[in-house]
Amino acid sequence: MELALLYSGGKDSSLAGLLLEEFYDVRLVTATFEITDDWQHAEQAADALGFPFETRVLEQSVAESAVDQMAEDGFPRNGIQQIHDHALEQVAGLDIDAIADGTRRDDRVPNVSRASAQSIEDRFEVDYIAPLSGFGRHAVDRLVEASFEVEAGPSEQIQKADYESELRTLLAERHGSEAVTAVFPEHEQTYVHGRR
Amino acid sequence: MELALLYSGGKDSSLAGLLLEEFYDVRLVTATFEITDDWQHAEQAADALGFPFETRVLEQSVAESAVDQMAEDGFPRNGIQQIHDHALEQVAGLDIDAIADGTRRDDRVPNVSRASAQSIEDRFEVDYIAPLSGFGRHAVDRLVEASFEVEAGPSEQIQKADYESELRTLLAERHGSEAVTAVFPEHEQTYVHGRR
Repeated sequence: MELALLYSGGKDSSLAGLLLEEFYDVRLVTATFEITDDWQHAEQAADALGFPFETRVLEQSVAESAVDQMAEDGFPRNGIQQIHDHALEQVAGLDIDAIADGTRRDDRVPNVSRASAQSIEDRFEVDYIAPLSGFGRHAVDRLVEASFEVEAGPSEQIQKADYESELRTLLAERHGSEAVTAVFPEHEQTYVHGRR
Repeated sequence: MELALLYSGGKDSSLAGLLLEEFYDVRLVTATFEITDDWQHAEQAADALGFPFETRVLEQSVAESAVDQMAEDGFPRNGIQQIHDHALEQVAGLDIDAIADGTRRDDRVPNVSRASAQSIEDRFEVDYIAPLSGFGRHAVDRLVEASFEVEAGPSEQIQKADYESELRTLLAERHGSEAVTAVFPEHEQTYVHGRR
């Protein structure tokens, strides 16, 4: 069975890949607006883990709508959720049996409700799987430590390919660099270098 | 890392075992009130899958309270939930790193909310994992078909070791056989015979 996993190069989506690989032919798919080439960091991580990799280009208008929302809100949550929902639908349109992401039980955003999951499954005739949604933060951290070589650090220094780096760039263009500081508080990101 | 998985011999808890075995030393634990010896069916399934097996005896008063609740409600949901919560706490008291169960995304009962999961983790200093909670019914069915030899049939004919068979017996004793028919509508159960 063919499964496409939304992939950032970070620990959560990498662990999701390991959980699924016994049961599916997993390919890692990184969504990009082609604003930066940060998706290449995800490709490097995918290579290090030994998974097939591809990108999926999202519409620029979705990114613009999301960063405008973020600038208005002063926090990224709603904009990130918009983009995640859009990215899932784009991946669901591939010729595959199942799609997945790295959302965890304790994540506030992105969050895919049971109703949203069912809606995607019905509209696209794919299974939607969130393999980490039954794992809390502590359990994920222990499995990551046992499974990967990880680099961690402040979010603007870690080479990672989630939507954040592209959105920071677009947010600065449209709303100034002070909007970036206001919307994205300092937080730690991770990048996976390979399996242990 | 040592993990105890609440186990019934059915497809869901069996699949949960397969999902976790790459990451944990999994032992299967079947909770019993010692009302019947139906736990032996779970032991046979565990042997067929190659997992260590043990039982955990629950307090009779919990079963009595649950079946009285069921008889009053006319449906099993609240009583089943009471017993599942009690069984999880009993298993969490073992000397282990993590506990798990086979609850799925689409299950109405038993259901362990995020708050309940966090509460168990805090009180018992274990990780609580629901590895199937990110999988819908269709995805579970496909993985089960690919992974196991399964027997399916009406719930009173399948040799299984979930709480239901013991509770049927106790419910009949305390409230008569007509209460069993009223509380437990006909539904299909599964029993796992081994790996494919």
